[in-house]
Amino acid sequence: MLQAALRSGTAGRRAVFEVFARSLPAGRRYGVVAGTGRLLDAIEAFTFGPAELEFLTGNGIVDGPTAEWLGTYRFTGEVRGYAEGECYFPGSPILTVEGTFAEAVLLETLVLSILNHDCAIAGAASRMVHAAGDRPLIEMGSRRTHERAAVAASRAAHVAGFTTTSNLEAGRRYGVPTAGTAAHAFTLLHDSERHAFEAQLASLGDGTTLLVDTYDVERAVRTAVDLAGPALGAVRIDSGDLGAVARDVRGLLDGLGAPDTRIVVTGDLDEYGIAALAAAPVDGYGVGTSLVTGSGAPTASLVYKLVARADGTDPGAPLRPVAKKSTGKPSRGGRKTAVRRLDARGTAAAEVVSVGEPAPAGHDRPLQVPLVRGGEVVGREDLAAARARHLASVAELPATALQLSKGDPALPTEFAEGGPRR
Amino acid sequence: MLQAALRSGTAGRRAVFEVFARSLPAGRRYGVVAGTGRLLDAIEAFTFGPAELEFLTGNGIVDGPTAEWLGTYRFTGEVRGYAEGECYFPGSPILTVEGTFAEAVLLETLVLSILNHDCAIAGAASRMVHAAGDRPLIEMGSRRTHERAAVAASRAAHVAGFTTTSNLEAGRRYGVPTAGTAAHAFTLLHDSERHAFEAQLASLGDGTTLLVDTYDVERAVRTAVDLAGPALGAVRIDSGDLGAVARDVRGLLDGLGAPDTRIVVTGDLDEYGIAALAAAPVDGYGVGTSLVTGSGAPTASLVYKLVARADGTDPGAPLRPVAKKSTGKPSRGGRKTAVRRLDARGTAAAEVVSVGEPAPAGHDRPLQVPLVRGGEVVGREDLAAARARHLASVAELPATALQLSKGDPALPTEFAEGGPRR
Repeated sequence: MLQAALRSGTAGRRAVFEVFARSLPAGRRYGVVAGTGRLLDAIEAFTFGPAELEFLTGNGIVDGPTAEWLGTYRFTGEVRGYAEGECYFPGSPILTVEGTFAEAVLLETLVLSILNHDCAIAGAASRMVHAAGDRPLIEMGSRRTHERAAVAASRAAHVAGFTTTSNLEAGRRYGVPTAGTAAHAFTLLHDSERHAFEAQLASLGDGTTLLVDTYDVERAVRTAVDLAGPALGAVRIDSGDLGAVARDVRGLLDGLGAPDTRIVVTGDLDEYGIAALAAAPVDGYGVGTSLVTGSGAPTASLVYKLVARADGTDPGAPLRPVAKKSTGKPSRGGRKTAVRRLDARGTAAAEVVSVGEPAPAGHDRPLQVPLVRGGEVVGREDLAAARARHLASVAELPATALQLSKGDPALPTEFAEGGPRR
Repeated sequence: MLQAALRSGTAGRRAVFEVFARSLPAGRRYGVVAGTGRLLDAIEAFTFGPAELEFLTGNGIVDGPTAEWLGTYRFTGEVRGYAEGECYFPGSPILTVEGTFAEAVLLETLVLSILNHDCAIAGAASRMVHAAGDRPLIEMGSRRTHERAAVAASRAAHVAGFTTTSNLEAGRRYGVPTAGTAAHAFTLLHDSERHAFEAQLASLGDGTTLLVDTYDVERAVRTAVDLAGPALGAVRIDSGDLGAVARDVRGLLDGLGAPDTRIVVTGDLDEYGIAALAAAPVDGYGVGTSLVTGSGAPTASLVYKLVARADGTDPGAPLRPVAKKSTGKPSRGGRKTAVRRLDARGTAAAEVVSVGEPAPAGHDRPLQVPLVRGGEVVGREDLAAARARHLASVAELPATALQLSKGDPALPTEFAEGGPRR
């Protein structure tokens, strides 16, 4: 596409691409924007070096002039979008990329791959967080997904409210707080469970979490309290009927004089499994597979569509809305502006998406912020800001948003014709 | 775990970990080993640099002696396993890692994340390849998964029989043949569909693939043949009832004197959608989302379990089988050997997994090959070898293996007590 557009003279036409979801994953009530911070780093670093260019020309994939153009490529355009952590709905224009066609079309796969992955994880994570109520969640899914996706998944889960991660690289790279417990292999390595617990306590202190289901849970809990006393931080249960075992273990710990020792449960938990344990004496959850696979929706299915472009390459040429017209996957032309319409109490009532500027209203919260201006990243922020925004964004939604059952999106998306862009 | 084991003196005990799946994804008939080549590269590169060590010590995650140990870490043990492309079944010991506990336990997340991802993709890809029969498949899912997982997914799909990929980095890094077509944005960029087609043909030649469903399919096909004549390589249909549209387009192309112009279809295809188009005049399929998400099974759910370890750290100390004993997730102790038992015609009849060496039989095909010896990679091979092995491995299975319907694994796994290891 790039080569043909460079040759036909259309590559320099001003173009606007929008990222949106045609729908949420089946039955979900809201989506969560995540990955924005990663995307900004990636846009900044997105260039073509000698190895890439040699591959492209050596294999006849692009011609000389295209390779030359790629050799100096750096995105110089504009990006605005929903800030990280914000909730979104079908049709929400969560990212808008504007530049020449050539520079903007090259970002499609980068933008979509980062947002499709991270939004999928955050969307699932947010439901788990709300199902867990005040109890903390540990992200433990690294081994169930691609080795680099794991680091991104951990970051996205933290944006959506997970407390800690077992992925140390996510701690190093993004500052996500880390946590961990021992595996069954650690117990099996030692001559007895008692030896294993002694070794862990000697090295990590009484505040550590001991895994108690390698052989016999009751015996393990007795051994743990015998060795660490009431200062024992936590025990972890990874198998069996988690609610029933947790109740037995709670009774045992209390009876042994360790009422402050916490109980952490793990083992194929998803948002439904977490919700089902609401009444059990559980102090924290570790979640793996279902988190990193988006709990049934491993991609957010976001698309990147050309919605407007200039007729010529003059810098001042007006932008013309464009849209695919055939059956099945319609799209709406024109650059969109989005606001969240609130009622008098501050509860969200609708996602209003307008071509051009929306008619002003008293309780509209604008949703798009500048992220890249003239190729320079301007939207970088702390992960803590995204976490806080996500909490606030969910709190603003109507109560139906927190239902785990399948249903319609918590807000309707209203498409409006706005006024001319100011 | 590492720190506690270093301190308790058990870190140096010889240990054997095995990778296996407790079950296949619901209803699948076989699994596919993929990612082995990536894993060997990753094991070779797996070390801890100053930035990692500073993070670990600066945040109190490990103590000084542990950081010092990590600073010189390099895996020096043995790895053997099923060769890449081989089919596997529940309980198949697809990878065996042997070394000190410390060096082998550190590889758990690396090994599982690579194999869980790549096996999931290859397992789904193989079903699509067999559903497509002789028709080629293009991998086009990069934008629906994490940006680096996309490259690995493309490689895994190729192992399982996909012909080409739209991921150029997979072409550069792994030699996967690349292919691509234009997007709707390219047509919308131009003043008319005719202009867009002219630009593409001028740049890429008549053998290119023109996307014909931006406005009106019939008009687009007429324009395409008008411009390129019977030499037009292919047209792509991305929306509507793909079978019905393909039939109309085939008739139109034939009527316009372009019987050799191929028809490529794309648009939310999975193995079932591909199979449903078997009777339609389709010459190739492009598959995206369903491939990179494992078509409903985004992780292979492989686990990494300690199955044997020495009682002490003497180099000659015998290995003792170990296994977790509590409810829910039992495992079998002892280092396993696996063979595929064949009948007199060479058709596979069972996966036989023995602790120790299996009793010799006339038609057993050994499944494990050496991959790493004394820390040195010895199992590297061309992607072409893995592709050929996968074809042969599937061809050897009973016919039920190719059924898309949900059912039992195509082979039973028989656990046997073998003789002493020779």
